[in-house]
Order: sequence, then C-alpha cells, then structure tokens
Amino acid sequence: MLAGNQLRQYPVPTFPPPESEDVESWLWNQIKAEARRDAESEPALASYLYSTVLSHPSLARSISFHLANKLCSSTLLSTLLYDLFLHSFSSSPTLRSAVFADLLAARHRDPACVSFSHCLLNYKGFLAVQTHRVAHLLWAQDRRPLALALHSRVAEVFSVDIHPAARIGKGILLDHATGVVIGETAVVGNNVSMLHHVTLGGTGKIGGDRHPKIGDGVLIGAGATILGNVIIGEGAKIGAGSLVLIDVPPRTTAVGNPARLIGGREKPARHEDVPGESMDHTSFITEWSDYII
Amino acid sequence: MLAGNQLRQYPVPTFPPPESEDVESWLWNQIKAEARRDAESEPALASYLYSTVLSHPSLARSISFHLANKLCSSTLLSTLLYDLFLHSFSSSPTLRSAVFADLLAARHRDPACVSFSHCLLNYKGFLAVQTHRVAHLLWAQDRRPLALALHSRVAEVFSVDIHPAARIGKGILLDHATGVVIGETAVVGNNVSMLHHVTLGGTGKIGGDRHPKIGDGVLIGAGATILGNVIIGEGAKIGAGSLVLIDVPPRTTAVGNPARLIGGREKPARHEDVPGESMDHTSFITEWSDYII
Amino acid sequence: MLAGNQLRQYPVPTFPPPESEDVESWLWNQIKAEARRDAESEPALASYLYSTVLSHPSLARSISFHLANKLCSSTLLSTLLYDLFLHSFSSSPTLRSAVFADLLAARHRDPACVSFSHCLLNYKGFLAVQTHRVAHLLWAQDRRPLALALHSRVAEVFSVDIHPAARIGKGILLDHATGVVIGETAVVGNNVSMLHHVTLGGTGKIGGDRHPKIGDGVLIGAGATILGNVIIGEGAKIGAGSLVLIDVPPRTTAVGNPARLIGGREKPARHEDVPGESMDHTSFITEWSDYII
Amino acid sequence: MLAGNQLRQYPVPTFPPPESEDVESWLWNQIKAEARRDAESEPALASYLYSTVLSHPSLARSISFHLANKLCSSTLLSTLLYDLFLHSFSSSPTLRSAVFADLLAARHRDPACVSFSHCLLNYKGFLAVQTHRVAHLLWAQDRRPLALALHSRVAEVFSVDIHPAARIGKGILLDHATGVVIGETAVVGNNVSMLHHVTLGGTGKIGGDRHPKIGDGVLIGAGATILGNVIIGEGAKIGAGSLVLIDVPPRTTAVGNPARLIGGREKPARHEDVPGESMDHTSFITEWSDYII
Amino acid sequence: MLAGNQLRQYPVPTFPPPESEDVESWLWNQIKAEARRDAESEPALASYLYSTVLSHPSLARSISFHLANKLCSSTLLSTLLYDLFLHSFSSSPTLRSAVFADLLAARHRDPACVSFSHCLLNYKGFLAVQTHRVAHLLWAQDRRPLALALHSRVAEVFSVDIHPAARIGKGILLDHATGVVIGETAVVGNNVSMLHHVTLGGTGKIGGDRHPKIGDGVLIGAGATILGNVIIGEGAKIGAGSLVLIDVPPRTTAVGNPARLIGGREKPARHEDVPGESMDHTSFITEWSDYII
Amino acid sequence: MLAGNQLRQYPVPTFPPPESEDVESWLWNQIKAEARRDAESEPALASYLYSTVLSHPSLARSISFHLANKLCSSTLLSTLLYDLFLHSFSSSPTLRSAVFADLLAARHRDPACVSFSHCLLNYKGFLAVQTHRVAHLLWAQDRRPLALALHSRVAEVFSVDIHPAARIGKGILLDHATGVVIGETAVVGNNVSMLHHVTLGGTGKIGGDRHPKIGDGVLIGAGATILGNVIIGEGAKIGAGSLVLIDVPPRTTAVGNPARLIGGREKPARHEDVPGESMDHTSFITEWSDYII
Repeated sequence: MLAGNQLRQYPVPTFPPPESEDVESWLWNQIKAEARRDAESEPALASYLYSTVLSHPSLARSISFHLANKLCSSTLLSTLLYDLFLHSFSSSPTLRSAVFADLLAARHRDPACVSFSHCLLNYKGFLAVQTHRVAHLLWAQDRRPLALALHSRVAEVFSVDIHPAARIGKGILLDHATGVVIGETAVVGNNVSMLHHVTLGGTGKIGGDRHPKIGDGVLIGAGATILGNVIIGEGAKIGAGSLVLIDVPPRTTAVGNPARLIGGREKPARHEDVPGESMDHTSFITEWSDYII
Repeated sequence: MLAGNQLRQYPVPTFPPPESEDVESWLWNQIKAEARRDAESEPALASYLYSTVLSHPSLARSISFHLANKLCSSTLLSTLLYDLFLHSFSSSPTLRSAVFADLLAARHRDPACVSFSHCLLNYKGFLAVQTHRVAHLLWAQDRRPLALALHSRVAEVFSVDIHPAARIGKGILLDHATGVVIGETAVVGNNVSMLHHVTLGGTGKIGGDRHPKIGDGVLIGAGATILGNVIIGEGAKIGAGSLVLIDVPPRTTAVGNPARLIGGREKPARHEDVPGESMDHTSFITEWSDYII
Repeated sequence: MLAGNQLRQYPVPTFPPPESEDVESWLWNQIKAEARRDAESEPALASYLYSTVLSHPSLARSISFHLANKLCSSTLLSTLLYDLFLHSFSSSPTLRSAVFADLLAARHRDPACVSFSHCLLNYKGFLAVQTHRVAHLLWAQDRRPLALALHSRVAEVFSVDIHPAARIGKGILLDHATGVVIGETAVVGNNVSMLHHVTLGGTGKIGGDRHPKIGDGVLIGAGATILGNVIIGEGAKIGAGSLVLIDVPPRTTAVGNPARLIGGREKPARHEDVPGESMDHTSFITEWSDYII
Repeated sequence: MLAGNQLRQYPVPTFPPPESEDVESWLWNQIKAEARRDAESEPALASYLYSTVLSHPSLARSISFHLANKLCSSTLLSTLLYDLFLHSFSSSPTLRSAVFADLLAARHRDPACVSFSHCLLNYKGFLAVQTHRVAHLLWAQDRRPLALALHSRVAEVFSVDIHPAARIGKGILLDHATGVVIGETAVVGNNVSMLHHVTLGGTGKIGGDRHPKIGDGVLIGAGATILGNVIIGEGAKIGAGSLVLIDVPPRTTAVGNPARLIGGREKPARHEDVPGESMDHTSFITEWSDYII
Repeated sequence: MLAGNQLRQYPVPTFPPPESEDVESWLWNQIKAEARRDAESEPALASYLYSTVLSHPSLARSISFHLANKLCSSTLLSTLLYDLFLHSFSSSPTLRSAVFADLLAARHRDPACVSFSHCLLNYKGFLAVQTHRVAHLLWAQDRRPLALALHSRVAEVFSVDIHPAARIGKGILLDHATGVVIGETAVVGNNVSMLHHVTLGGTGKIGGDRHPKIGDGVLIGAGATILGNVIIGEGAKIGAGSLVLIDVPPRTTAVGNPARLIGGREKPARHEDVPGESMDHTSFITEWSDYII
Repeated sequence: MLAGNQLRQYPVPTFPPPESEDVESWLWNQIKAEARRDAESEPALASYLYSTVLSHPSLARSISFHLANKLCSSTLLSTLLYDLFLHSFSSSPTLRSAVFADLLAARHRDPACVSFSHCLLNYKGFLAVQTHRVAHLLWAQDRRPLALALHSRVAEVFSVDIHPAARIGKGILLDHATGVVIGETAVVGNNVSMLHHVTLGGTGKIGGDRHPKIGDGVLIGAGATILGNVIIGEGAKIGAGSLVLIDVPPRTTAVGNPARLIGGREKPARHEDVPGESMDHTSFITEWSDYII
C-alpha cells in the first residue's frame, strides 16, 4: 500500500519567500513551475494546463479564466463571467491576497494537497470561496441580483452554498467542501478550516442576525451543524457530526448531537494549538468515544 | 455589519392578490416586474433575465426554458427537454398551481429569498421539485425510462435526489437543498419545509412500501435522516441532525441521534404553530441542549 | 399508492448466465435488450439510448462514451476523456469485471434499480466509482495530475469525492452517492454498500496512513462518518448518522454519535448475514431506538 | 466505377399519394420510414436520426428541432429558436406546404438526392429556404430585427444569403447552395431551380425596387450573376457563369459574360420544357461552345 | 410588394455628429439606442441584444464579446479570444477608428443596412474585416501562428478568407462577403467596396509580391477575379464576374472575362464619381451589354 | 511592405526524408516540432496546439481529434465522430498516405503555407478532402447515410461540397477552397490543384455518369466551372473564371466563358510543366488578355 506521506512528492515550500520577491510573484511563479512540470510529464493534460494556467500573465487572469469556464452556463456566458472576475481580481489587492492565503492554507493543512496548482485547479472549496468573495463585493455594492446569480452557480456547480452577504476571512480551507452551507448573516474569521457537509445555519423565518459567528482559527469537523446566532470562540474545535446550538468558548472542543464540551461545561478542557491550522480533529477520541464502542 | 432584515429590500407582497386578478397572472406579473427592475439596475445580468424571464409570454414557458437549459447535457438536448417541460406545464393546471404554491412558500418562509424571481431562477430545491413533479407525471403514465432520466439529471445538476415515484405535495420548501434524498415510496404532504441533507430513506433491499410518510406542515431540520415506512405526524418538527426510525406524533418535536421526543415519550410537548410554515427550528434549544454545553 | 414491488417490472435475471455464454457478453446483451425496449416504448429517449448504448459494439465503448460526455468541460474535451477511458477499459479486464460486479450489486441490492441500463446510465455512485478506478490506475502509474483532474471532475459533476489513491474493491454500491467522501489512504473491501453522505475521513494535517479500512461486506448507513485509520471488520454494519472513531469488530453493528455497539461493548450482538449484500439497515431499530421516541 | 443511377437505391415514389391519405401525412410517413431504415442499417447514426426525425410526432416539430440546433449559437439559444420555428410551422399551412413542395423538388430534380430525409437533414439550400420563409413572415409582421438575425445565422451557417424581404415561391431547389445571394427586392417564382454561387443582386446604393424578378420554372446555372430590376421570363434558362444585366424573354436561354441569347436577339431559340423542372442545363452546349474549344 | 425605400425605417443619421460630441461616443450611443429600441419591440431578441450590445460599456467591449462568441470553437475558447480582441481594440485607436469608418461605410452605401447595430451584429464582411485587422496586427508583431488561427476561424465561420499579411484600408464594405478571398501580398486602399465572391489572388507557387493592389474608392462587382501583382487605379470600377489580369487605369471601368475597358483601351471612358462610395455598378449596362441580349 | 518571401520563415524541408526514417514518422515529427516551436513562442495558442497536435501519439489520432471537434454539432457528438475517424485513419494506410501527399502538396505549391501544421490545422480544403476520403470509404462500404452526414457537415463547416461517391486522387491542393463543388460521378486524378469556387458539376436531372473527369496534374483556376462528363486531359490548365463544357486536351490551356484553347483549337499551345504542381496560372496572360485592357 502506498504510504500517504510518500505521495507528497513535493515538499511544502518554505514560506515567506526570499525578501527579494513579493508574495504574489513568488506564488504565481510556483504555480507556473508546477503546471509546466505537469504539462511535460503528462501531454494529455498539457492543453488543459496551458489554457488554465500557462497561457496567462498573472494569477488574476488565470483564476478569472478558470472560474468563468467552470461557472458558465448556456444562459450565463463565460465571456461575461470572465469580464466580471477579471475586473474584480485585477482591481482588488484584498481579493488577491485572500487567494494567496487560501492557497497556502490548503497546501499547509491538507496532506492530500500536492501542489498549489492542484488546489487552484481542482479544489471545489477553494474555487467556491474565491467566487463568494467576488459575490460579496457585488453584494456590498448593492449589485445583489448579480451576486445571487454567482451564488446560485456555485451552489449548483460545486455544491457549496455560501450566501453572498456572509463575511468570510482569509486563510480559509473548505476541505472536500461538498454540501457546505453558510447563511446570510454568518461571519467566519481568519484561518478557519471546515470539512464537508458543515452547516452554519439560521433560525426560522424571521430576518435579522440569525447565523453563527465563527472565531479565528476554529476547526469544524465533517457534517457538523451550527445553528443560530451563536459564537464559536477563537481556536475552538467542533467535532464531526456535532450539532451546536449555543455558544462554544474559545479553545474548547464541542462534540456530539447535541454537542457537549469535552471536559464538561464547568471546566472544559482547553487546548493550546490553533485547530483551524493544526487540523487536529481526532485527538479527543480517547477522551470521548473510546469507552463507547 | 448588514442586519439581515435590511437585506429584505422588497416586502413580501400581500397575498392573495386583489380580486380582479387571478393568481397566475398576478404572480407572473410580479416576477416580470422584478426581473425588469433587476435588468435595469444590472446590465450585466439583463441578457440572462431576458432569456430566462422577460422574453416569455407565461410562467409555464419561462420555467420550461430555464429547466431545459439547466438540465440539458450533450446527450439530452435542451430542445428535447424544453418540449417535454412545456407540454407538461402547459397542459397541467395542477403542476402550475404547485409552482405558485412553492414560490409563495419560499418567499414567505425563507428570509434570504428576496423576490419570487430569485427563487424561480436560483433555488436548486425549487427547480428540483418542479422537475420532480414532471418526472412523477411521466412515471404515473408508465414512461419510466424518461422519468428516471430526469431524476438522474436533477441528482447530478442540483444534488437533489427525489425518486420519480415519490409523491410530493404543494407549498414545499427545500431550503439550500443540497444532498436531499427522497426515496421511491416516500410521501410528503403539503406545506412541508426541509433543509438540506435531509434523507427520507428506505429499509434494505426488499421492495415494497419502505419509505417515510411526512404529514402536512412538517419541518425537517438540516441533516435529519428519517428511515423506513414511518409516519411523521402533521405539524411535527424534526431537529437538525436527528435520526428518526419510528413514528413521530403530530405537533411534537423529535431531536437527537437516535431521536427523542421533547418533553418525553409519554407526554411530549405539543406546539400550536405549523413548523413547516413558521420555520421555527430552534425554539426548543432552551429545552434541549442548553444544559449540555 | 403504487406499491414499491409493483414497480419492479423486470425481475432481476438469474445469475450466473447459462454456461454457453461468458459474463461480459451476457450482461452487455441484457443492457442492449433493455435499452432497445426502452427506446421503442419512449421515442423521446431513443436518441439518448442509441448514443449512449445501442450504437456501441461493447460495454467498454458505451461506458467510455457516457463518462466522457458526463465529465467533459470546456477545458477538458470529451474526445480527450473518451480516449483515456476507452484505452483503460479496453486494456484492463480487471476494470471491466469490476464494472460487471458493480452493475450486479446495484441490481440485486437496490430495489429502486429497475434494470442494468438504469444503473449504467443514471447512477452517480456507479459512474463515480468506475471513474475512480481509472483514476486509481493512473495514480498507480504515477500519472497523478491526470488522476487528480478526473477526481476533481467527479467531485464536481457527481458530488462524490474519492481520492485517486484510495483502494476500492468490487461489487460496490454507492446508493444515491451525493456527498460521499473517501480519503487518500482509505481501503474499501469487496461487496461493500454505502449510502449517501458517508465519509471515510482522515485525521489532521499529517500525511501517512490516516483513513479507515472497510472490510468485505460492510454496510454503511446514510450520513455515517468514519474517521481515522480504524478498521471496520468484515460484515459489520454502521448505522445511519453514526460517528465512528475506533475499530468496529466483524459482524457487529455500531450506531449513534458517538457510535456504540448494539448489544454492548463486551458482548456485542453478532449477525449472520452480510449487510453489504442484504442491505438490512433497520432491523436493529427495535433494539436501539424503540424505547426512545 | 459506380454508375450514378446505381446509387439511386430508392425509386422516387409515385406522387400524389393514394387518395386515402393527405399529402402531409404521406410525406412524413415516407421520411420516418427512411429514417427508420437508415437507423437500423447504421447504428452509429441512429441517435442522430432519432433526435432529428424519429422522436418527433410531426414534420413541423422535426424541422423546427433540426433548424434550431443547426442555427443556434452561444448568444442565440436553441430553445429560443425552436420556439420560434415551431410556432411558425405549426400555425402556417402555407409554410408547411412549401416544405413539401421543396422536398419533392429536390427528390425529383436532383439525381444525387437519395431520399426525402436526405434532403430534410442535409441540404443546406433546403434548410436555408425554409428558414428564409420564417424570416420573411417575421419581416412582413414588422419583426425585422428578428428576421435579420435569422438571415445572418443562415448566411454564416449555410453560406446562403437571402434577404428576409425577398419573396420566394414554392418548389424551389437550391442545389449545393453555397454562396447563393438573393437581394432585398428580388422575387423568385414557383418551381425555380438554382445552382450554387447564383447572385440575384441589386444596383448601387439607392434603395427601392432594384433586384431581379425570376419567373416560374426558370433554371439558373452555377455561378450566374443577375443584377438589377430585370425580368427573367418564365421557363427561361440562364447558363452557368453568365452575367445578366437586362431582361431575358420567356423560354429562351441566355449564356455568357455578358449574356447573349442562344439563337440571337431577334429570333432566340425557344424551348418547350420547363428548365427549372427538367434541370437541362447543358443541351445548348452544341449550339454555343462546341466550336470554341 | 414592399418598396425597398419603405424598408429604410431609420434615416441614415447626419454625419459628422454635433461638435460637442466625439465620433466614438456618438456612434456607440447610436448603436445602443438602436439596440434598446429593438429589444423593446422584440422581447425574443432582447437577451441577444443585451448580451452583445447593451450590457457593454463601450464599443470595444461589445465587438470583442461578439467576435469571441462568433469565432470560438471547442479548442479555441471564447474567453481566450475575448482577451485577445479586447486587448487589441482597447489599446489601438487605429483599430477603433477603422471600426467606425466601416460601420459608416455599410450604413451609407448599402441600402439594405437598416442600422449601425444591424451591421455590427450581422454583417459577415464587417466582422471578418475587423478580425482581419487584429490578425494583421499580430502578424506585424511576428505572432504568426495566432494570426493564422484567427484567419482560419474567419474562413470557416464567415467564408471570408483574408490572409493576415494583407493590408486593408478603412471605410471598407464587403457586401454579402461570402467567398471573398484576399491574398497575402494584396493591398486594399480606403473606401473600397467589394461584393461577394471577389478574389484578389496570386500567381503560382513562387512567393514574393504577387497579389493585386486596389486603389482608394474602387468598386469591385460580385464574382470578379483579379489575379497577380496588378494595380487597380483609384476610383476604378470592376464589373461583376470580370476576370482582370493586368492593370486598370484610375476612374475607368473594366468588364468581362477577360476584362475590357469600357470605351476601349485607347480612350477609356472616365467617370467622375467614386464608385467605391457611390456603389454604381450598373450604369455602364447601356454601353456594354444592351445590344447583346 | 512585407515581401512575400520574407514571410516564408521556414524553408520547405528536403524531401524525401533521410533513408533511416519512414515517411510517416518523418512528417509527424516535423509537425510536432513546428507545433512545439509555435507553442513556445505563443503561450495563448499553446493549449490549442497541445490539444490538437502535441498530446497525440500519432498523426492519425491528431487529425481524427481535430476533424471530430471541427465537424461535431449538437446532434452529432465529437466522441462519435472521433471514433469513426480514428478507426478509419488507423486501419487504412491508404488514407494515411493520402494525408501525407496532401500535406506535401500544400507545403510545396502554396507559398502562403508556412508549415505542415499550418495546413493540418487551418486549411479548409485539406480538412475537407481528408473527411471526404473517409466518407468515400463509407460510401463504398454501402454505409451511405453516414457518408452523406459527413458530406453535409463538411459542406456547412468548410463550405466545400464533395459528394462522397466522387473519386479523388492523392497530392490534392484545394487552395482557399470556399465554394468548391465536386459532383457524384466526378473523378479527380493525382497531383491536381484547384482554387476556390471551382465547380465540377453535372448535367440535369438524369442520374448516371454525368460529371467531369480531371486528369493527373491539372490546374483549375479560381471560379472555373466544368460541367458534364467531359475529360480534362492530364496536365491541362483551366483559367480562372472559365466555363468548360467539352473536353480539353492534355497539357493545353483553356480560358474564358465559354472556354477557348490558348493557341486555338487546331494547334493549341502545349506546355511542358505540370500545372497542378507548378501552379503557374498566369503565364498565359500575355497571350490572351494583354491586348484587351
């Protein structure tokens, strides 16, 4: 059997890059080098890699091209979407720096991510989040029908449903990503990692502030459901399959349906690491479920 | 931060419409007015809005066009699907009145739904249910291979899997909708609301009547799994993430994995509202999970 | 109401076929006969059935054509994918025999599966698994960028996310399939059945062997989450919505979040059937949840 | 070498059909029988024949489907065109009877036309003329932008340029058809045959009635250019490559650049046949060019 | 019968525009006003007009979008072409002013041209020439493979074959345009009008300067063939169907195959108008062909 | 002005190749080297060049892929066509050697042809002829509906209309190619060159042997029309725009409408070269038209 770490052919590069180079250039050069190497080793994929990466002068153009071709439909043409994405990524350094942060997040946190270009081209969660950021900008500019059209395309194409009004930080990893739902008034901090099927949902049919607020560095396991205007404190960890309906204190771990705090409500165990970055979502196993099966 | 209710620019219109107008005309006029307003404010989307809504003389044509272009593939041409949908919606007042009821359901129950056209164009759950109703008609007419082909396209494009034999009422809201699975012998009443990842599943490999029966006005939270030929009584509420394997009495609330009744099995708490319409899926929090975290 | 077993128009054929015929020919002849019958009864679908099945001289060509047209995109042309699939299926008897085993699995275990061609054409889980096997071959040949491109297309088109390095046996049924996630170092034995939303996930950001090992004949219910390098013993059954973080002994049943063994940890109840084949996922209801609601 | 008449496998059917049948049904039944025969003998084409012919209940639907899929583009969707064509052909018996007359014209006059379905599916000239008739209706209804959009698509897809205002009779054969140009105020009578590269052109930049008037039964050879508001009398014949700038009397033959009348201006030779039907475009060779080479 | 001049609903606007406005803005405003009027009167076309014209902030974007969608193929994506056209038209005032001159040429010289947008959207000759100018720029920048790829797409899509090295002036009208061929070393002056099937061809297989040089204001009739490095003097007129193999003096008229000068070789008739602008291609009829038929 | 011969960057390679290599390999290697060079110098085209040439292991696959993507439509899928072309080119050395001969013909005879890949990818005439050869094979195998479907696609996409029954030799150059029409019983020898708009047409509506027979090495100028079962002797030359209705002796030149022999009917001038290869189509100018203008 192939050992997982043998599959990581390419070591995660030292970061930040040497001072002589800026981050944007460095990352774009890495991506092009990866794509060039892959195109050489796999002629069947070369056309794809040239059209998506190697023919472009910048990451902004590459990602705009890629998203436009992923999200277009017979009634929303790729040229229209390309224009929209290119204008957004070209004019907003904030959007671009979030792209970099998310690429680094995937590369550092997901052992299955073999290269930056792997994430750029293939990760549904990454592509959904970048599109969300553009949709969020449009929403903030009161261009809501267009923002909702992007939202809808992402929900169909990537099965990731992030309302354009939701506010999402940088350094986000949506791993696998299928079925993630993030509601209208949700807020997600920086360096948060979520697995697939995570719901940050609302409460009923009354409008207003009704979705979760996720602190920096939080890790949310697969299939966890967090409902209502609750606060998940920074560095908290939510176990897979948990149902969370009330606040979770910082750096604690909540598990189960309904969720309980590991260590108990009064004196919950506090961890020191940042789970959204360390991705440790099973070390509590011994404390919690060992005795059950 | 934007408050959620500030986002509801357009008040939900008074309904029913003034007597002088019939429901179909009224709703279609609303939709056209919304699309016209959006096309004017957002030229980049005008082409899309004209092709999907404004160029059509009726809602039946608009939705047939939209579904045909969403669900077509290189082997199932849009013109073939358009023909099929148009014939179905044009010839069946029942299908059309279900469209209206579902549009109103989304508009009244989902605070993130800003307009009827928002739902018509963008809601995967809405589009999946309308396609299901056409597939169900075909199934009833013993045109099963075609019904199953539609079923398959919906499962791929919208990630919503409703067997064409399932019987679904009117006034249905599938919110977010990704991952919903409704099996062959399931029955869903009127005015039911379900969140995403809900399963109405079967029991094993023996055919026959093996899926849940969901009463009128039921609300099923995100990720709930209901298995087997069980009855969820009218107006019941199933908490998010619950696993339900036996009957749930009317107007009670079941939560947890496996599910328990709020208030206990003997004297369960009974609510007066219709949760499928009120969408209240967290008021039981205080009773249930408050003490846990 | 239509009784489910009335819907099974076509009895599951006796298998194995008469000795005079080999399995491949027999199954391909069945599929063509089904498609011909459906094309005759439903002219609107005849074009689809000819292009996907009836115009092809072999199942290898039919499935290659079908997958290429399902998975192509504007940047990954159908002709390229067709070449790749056709070469793989034509040159590998192993791949082809797995196709047969999976078709038989769906036909025998899923009462909603009305014919082999129904599965071949419409089952997302079936199509995802066949593509995975091709991707796995490419991965083993160190053609990883191409394997990952296939992986990505399957994740988008079918919402099924199977890492190309994962090792999957034969006779697999992914029923409904939406949202299934199978990680890089997971191993799935023969004759395993999984429902939708099943996760065979990893543990954190360290590479290496970190995903579940699923024994032969295991049945995993909808929404079950199994995390870490744990062993699910042969013939075990995992209840819907369960969260499993440690080993499960052979022929036992684990349910709940976190999962418990039916019958208790010390003396778990052992069943005699092979749940992956019998698909019995509710007979434990009486033992487990009856007393709760 | 294959003799041309051996290629005519199928004799041109006796026409008119037996009294018990109306013309429309008879012709549509012929077409379906041909398509069915071809689908059986050539599985690779069966999908195409089912989608274009055999899945349709009428010739009006078949031709609408076929034209919509031929003429659509990324900005003019096939569903829109299908709607337009279907409405036109369904509501106008005149349009439909012209379709029949043109199919019979091709079948009787062109020895390379092996069947009605061959013409219906493959003849650019036939398809261009049917589209023109729809565009002409739109023009007459003052829907000029739409008429001009159809005109433009035909000019691009078929390289046949017929202004929507031009008036074209029935029983028309545009053989090969590439490069035919027919101007705004041109009139073409019934039972006219034209080869490819024929121009019925105007005179300068002043509007008004400025294009040729072609009488019934005229035959115009390949590459002939007729300019200005001139009259080509009924049953006249225009030699290939001729340039005609003034009137041509009925039942005479004009040849050359500039064109001369065979037999001379004063006493031109008069033929008795109808050249647009007899397709005799070389019998004058002996009189005209024999002595030259 | 509809008189041609009744069809000219919209008078050709006075030009140049009022001093307060620059030419670019004036023309773009005209085009948008036309498109808006047409979209209002014809809802079926509104989507097309919004996507091609009304959603764009400038003529450069509109024409880039339109050409990209016309010329794209499954191997040359519209987003790639859009990028290329947009960069070219945005950065070159020369290209843009040629667009304007050609639009005015079509509108003033072709009585069938009912509006600027009619030409912009529908005229193959116009679209082919604009693409040629971009290809010519690429050729001059030594980007020949890309120039030849554009050349090839134009030859296929519009049936107009202009070698990217050919030098073409401004104010060009290619009326109908099908079949026009302009060779590698051809030069075409300003304000030239050509009808369809015109050839400016070369002489044999030796490279070098081997194609015609067409002076300013020349008019070339339909089907005329001009071969070799010959000079057609300014303001000359070439009759339809003529074959020209040697020089033609300025302001004279050549007709026939092979071509002769009207008035004779020694004292050819000289006209005062500019035929490329006046489009008078039949006034010589009385002198030339009247006596023949 | 760029001199034409400066544009010929790449000298036509010495042929035949060195003995150590076979012709097929040599030519395919040349093509790949050209494509690689172009991909390096023009990143915007690299994706196109990889998908059409560089990702393929053989010329047979490359041309099959290219033709399938050029000729596919929404009702004739690229995968179906690819299968058909690949089978034809792979199994027939005759087809492949004709490809080589035609590539060499274009490269040696057309000074605008800068490389083999330029012809392979961009020349409509080349691509039309290769498709014709496949259609001709199908015709000979009595698979006529499929042959006619290919014929029809070529007529639409390339505006080249060659009946599948026509017999075409090797070393053919159709320069520019738009509007070429070659009828059912036409025969074209080896090493023939034709310009665009050439017609090899029939005579009337009677079937049988009714189209021209073109000898080896013939050159036919632009717009020439040859009608009826006439023989154009080997090495003859037909002037541009000529109309030929009777036999032309070997190695003579026919010009005009109707055509005359240069040198007169009794003692026509005979040339020594092979015009189909020398491409000399203007040296007769001095003899013929000099005195006219």
